[in-house]
Formats: sequence, structure tokens, C-alpha cells
Amino acid sequence: MKPRVYLDHNATTPLRAEARAAMTDAMDVIGNPSSVHAEGRKAKSVLERARADVTTAFGADGADVIFTATATEAAALALRDRAFHAGDIEHDAVAAWVTSDLSVGLDGAVTVTEPAQTVLQAANSETGIVQKLPEGLAVSDMTQAFGKLPVAFNWSGCQMAMISAHKLGGPKGIGALVVKRGTDIEAQIRGGGQEMGRRSGTENIIGAAGFAAAAKAAADDLANGVWDRVASLRDLLEETLVAEADDTIFVGAGVDRLPNTLCLATPGWKGETQVMQMDLAGYAISAGSACSSGKVRASRVLKAMGYAEEIAAGAIRVSLGPESTEQDVLGFAESWLAHYRKHRARAA
Amino acid sequence: MKPRVYLDHNATTPLRAEARAAMTDAMDVIGNPSSVHAEGRKAKSVLERARADVTTAFGADGADVIFTATATEAAALALRDRAFHAGDIEHDAVAAWVTSDLSVGLDGAVTVTEPAQTVLQAANSETGIVQKLPEGLAVSDMTQAFGKLPVAFNWSGCQMAMISAHKLGGPKGIGALVVKRGTDIEAQIRGGGQEMGRRSGTENIIGAAGFAAAAKAAADDLANGVWDRVASLRDLLEETLVAEADDTIFVGAGVDRLPNTLCLATPGWKGETQVMQMDLAGYAISAGSACSSGKVRASRVLKAMGYAEEIAAGAIRVSLGPESTEQDVLGFAESWLAHYRKHRARAA
Repeated sequence: MKPRVYLDHNATTPLRAEARAAMTDAMDVIGNPSSVHAEGRKAKSVLERARADVTTAFGADGADVIFTATATEAAALALRDRAFHAGDIEHDAVAAWVTSDLSVGLDGAVTVTEPAQTVLQAANSETGIVQKLPEGLAVSDMTQAFGKLPVAFNWSGCQMAMISAHKLGGPKGIGALVVKRGTDIEAQIRGGGQEMGRRSGTENIIGAAGFAAAAKAAADDLANGVWDRVASLRDLLEETLVAEADDTIFVGAGVDRLPNTLCLATPGWKGETQVMQMDLAGYAISAGSACSSGKVRASRVLKAMGYAEEIAAGAIRVSLGPESTEQDVLGFAESWLAHYRKHRARAA
Repeated sequence: MKPRVYLDHNATTPLRAEARAAMTDAMDVIGNPSSVHAEGRKAKSVLERARADVTTAFGADGADVIFTATATEAAALALRDRAFHAGDIEHDAVAAWVTSDLSVGLDGAVTVTEPAQTVLQAANSETGIVQKLPEGLAVSDMTQAFGKLPVAFNWSGCQMAMISAHKLGGPKGIGALVVKRGTDIEAQIRGGGQEMGRRSGTENIIGAAGFAAAAKAAADDLANGVWDRVASLRDLLEETLVAEADDTIFVGAGVDRLPNTLCLATPGWKGETQVMQMDLAGYAISAGSACSSGKVRASRVLKAMGYAEEIAAGAIRVSLGPESTEQDVLGFAESWLAHYRKHRARAA
């Protein structure tokens, strides 16, 4: 049997070996970080070491890294009752709390008028399109960018940012809200006063250790040019498909994108159908962003960019990882083009 | 060097071997449970298997188990903007959201007047005292009871209950709010609509697998009488201390308690001091409940029960685990009594 090829790294990533090792070590930690005895102090030291490593990897020295269960939780912590504005291309976890009234160009760029009242993602999960973050931005969702682009919180000019471990090879179940020191944040989850009073509840030691190890490994990958190689593969894939699929729209082609993401929309060929066909062929990709089961709708992101419903409904996302190979992308291209030809034949 | 003895299982527990194995297996899961491809469906099946196992272990068939990061998060989900009432013996995670105006007896029993408007813990983390839950209770914090007592959600008469993995040998970073099907819960963390729309964010697959394995193992322990053995050890410890420490108050002696918990208060000898002395002697115990670092105050729980400040400030908690031994408790008793004698000599 042909091995499966996973090309859905923007949905979630396989666990990096470094994260696995760190988590396995952390399984031996017995104490509660809030306990004052030796076992508690040991747990606290593992937690704080993890926080320091995430802080460094995210270029956030001097800022507060508040561990949360998910970037979604971090968004709720940053955004609830804040009445911020955004373009309608943000993740559902952001869209739930903001007024989505900022204009979005066909190139995906959001026009920000009041940075201090605005949430703007660093990169889009579906298209990979990278935003220019204005100085003084209130909040940025850096979940997709962190680990794939050389982002640094302290250079971003943002007051707050959300990040997540499982997008960069860490475990699901831990993320963070990063805030400039002194930022006023009202705790949504209250009790014991953990996480500097911003997020109560016993800390996810194993998850934090995995997050830290993955973030460090991702930073090393970036420094070692791994994502340049991935970008070449993505470009190779795009060129291979562009050469034949002449009614397919390559969203974000020519603009600044994540190195691993290819978003393509074929009018009249539902993204959902393509995902199923490619799944049967052994390739894991997605239509839109993976959020909750059963939801398959025309991409809200593409519609916000001005694409027609029929195009938005025909979008798929192929997102590579640091271990993706030329064989993976050429195999995908071959299989997808074979289905594309059938689709064209049926549509003719 | 003498091995350390961990007697702080109500703060958190060592990871059970079963949980470690399940988590290690779950580290191989690649997909996002919201993705429709094979990798996503596999992740979904691991998650739903874990949910089914927790549901069964908690006697909650037919109820909804909503995974959260912590019982603290579950409390916020159940209690925010609800204006429930409680006695002032609840965990800080509950106390943050309720009006603590119900009367508490010296035996720790809370007088409930309107069950449908009340939050009442199944067992207290500091004293181990078990409450009689009235039929129709709105919410019960079962975090300490689940895994140590044969609780069953469906027999409890409660509308909602909070539970946590790390109190029964599972990992920190996952808990649940369990609700009778049809209970109206407003999501606090919004976005992708995971967890039946009640708690968005990518699910903690590794944590859920660990929670389920630990809950099953804990249920097996209960069925196999492990906690009866632990209760005998606790009683042996209590008898040994009672025999000499004649000004020490044994809180909850004679009332229904968790099998593993001993709370004792010695007037004039600060709990904090005792914890440090016993830590140096190789024993991990606590004063009050471990919540966030640096907080050492007279026990709010004991004060609510009517104990004077001086007594409440002198309280410690010794909480055994399924692997505690007679040697552990007799060694602790010997060491504690030696310090007790010094304390008495100083005080004289």
C-alpha cells in the first residue's frame, strides 16, 4: 500500500521528535507548580523553563507569555468585551468576538484604519497570505505564522498575539496569549490565580514542555532554511498545476505568502469533493480551515477577498510541512490533475 | 539518600502507567479531529473513544462530557453569569463566580436551601469531607471525589459537574464539564464550534487519551478495593498522631471523608512552617489547597467551618495515593511527631 501523504499542516502538524522527547521527560514530573515542596518546585521549574523557551523562540523577551489551552482560548482572553474591528478573513476564534467591517482587497490585504482597535492576523490559514502589521496593532493572530516565518513579537508592534503549539510540531492542547508587559487583561478563567492572575487552573506541564521543544525546533528549522526548501516545493507544485489547470485560480499567487501554503479554487468543482477524492488517493488536504466537524461551507475568507460564491466553494488548501518531499508534491500534482481532467470532461 | 514520599495527591497525582502508555500512543495521531480526511477521522476516533471511556468511568452515559483544559475552566463554563450560591468551602475556581452565603457546619456540611441555584462540592480538597448532594443540585465540583469514591454522575442528581484528569493519575491540562443532555450552556471560548458548540478550539488528543486511561484505571482501583487499603493507612496515620498530639485538631474525624485525606490543625504552629519542615524531612504535604504560588493564608475552608484563625492557620493536609505504603505513613508520623514535640517545647 502506498504510504499516506499529509499535506494539511495548517490544520495541525505531526508531533516533532523533540516535542515527544520533552513530553516524555515531563511525564515524570510529579508535583503541582503551585505546591511549595520539592516536587512542586520541580514542576514550577519545568513550566517556567518552557515559558522561557517559548518566549525566546517567539522573540518576546520582556513580554508576558500566558499559557492557554489553545489559540482559540487566547483569542477569547484577548478579545472578549473589547469590541475590536477586523477584516472578515480572521479565524472563527477571532471572528466570534470582533466586528468584521474592515475592507479586504482581492490580494487579501486588510485596510486598517485604527490599529489600536484592530485585530489582524499575521498570515491566513487558508490562503497563506501574509499581512503587513501596522505599528500599534492591538492584537495579531500569529498562529499560522509562528514557526513558518521569522516573526518576533517584540518587532511586530503588536500589543497582544495568539500562538499555538500544534501548528508548529507541538501537541494539541496548549497555546498562549503573549502580551506586552503591563497590558490590562481581565481573566476569563478565574480561581487559583495562575499565569500571573490572567488564567487560573493547574498548568499543562507536559504540554508546555512539548510546546517549548517544538518552538525551539521550529526556530532552528527557520534558521537552517528548511522553509526555503518547502517554499521551493510549494512553488514547484504551483507551477505544475498552473501549467495545465487553466480555469483554476491560484489565490495569493504573487503576493507574500506562507512558504508552505497553496490555495487554489476551481469553479464548479467543490472543494469538499476534491478533499474526498484526494483523501481516497492518499493525500490529506483541506477545504477551508479545519474547525469543527461537519462544517463544509464556501470559504468565508475567499468571499471576503471578493471571490464569487462559486469560486469560494471550489477552494482547497494544500499545506506542506518541514518533512514534505518533491515526491509528495509531484505525486499530489499528478493525482489532482487526473481528477481535474475528469472534472473538466464532466463539465464539458 | 532516603527516597522522597509524596503525600500531596489532592494537589496533583503522579501520572499512572496506563495514562502514560495511552498518551504515548496518541502522540502518533497526526490529524485534526475536525479534518474530514483519514488522518482527521483517526484523530476524531481517538478523541471520541476517550470521551466514551471518561463518560463510562464517571457513570455519565447519556450525558455530555465537554472536555476543557482544567476543572477551573469547566467551573467558569458552568458558573459565569449564573449567580449561583455556595458555602465558603468551595475551590477558588468556584468561589470566583458564586455568592458564598450558605451556612457551613463545624462538621463541614453545607446547608442547601435552593438546590437548583447552588454549587456544592462532592468532597473538599483540604479536609476530604464528603457532602450529601441534594437532588436537583445545579452544579457539583466532583474533582476530588472522582477516582477516589464511587461517584456516578447519573446517580448524583446534579445538572452539571466538574472533573479533572490530574487528580486521578491523568495528565495536567485536561478536565471536563459534564452536563445532563439538553443543559443550556453558553460557550465562553468560541470559534470553530468543537465540543458540541460548548467549547471551541482544537482538542487535546494526547491529554484526552491520558484522561480516559487514568479514569479507567482509577475505576478499576475502586472496584479492587485499593482505596479501602488507603483508608486503612490514613486511619493508621490518624490514630498514630492522635495518640500523642493532644492539642491537635483532626478536622473531619468521624464524618464521611475521602479515603486518602487527613487534615490536622495545630494551634500556634503554622501550616506553612510544617509544610517546609516536612519537605526538608522528605515528605510532600500541603497547607490548604495548592492554587497559585506564593499564596499562604489561613485556610478559608476551616474558617468557614467555624474554626478560629489561629487554628485555621495551623492546618496541614496529608493526602495519600493508591501506591502509598504503611512505611510512608509511619515514617511521616514519626517525623511529624518529632517536629511536634519541638514545637511544643518551644511553645511551653
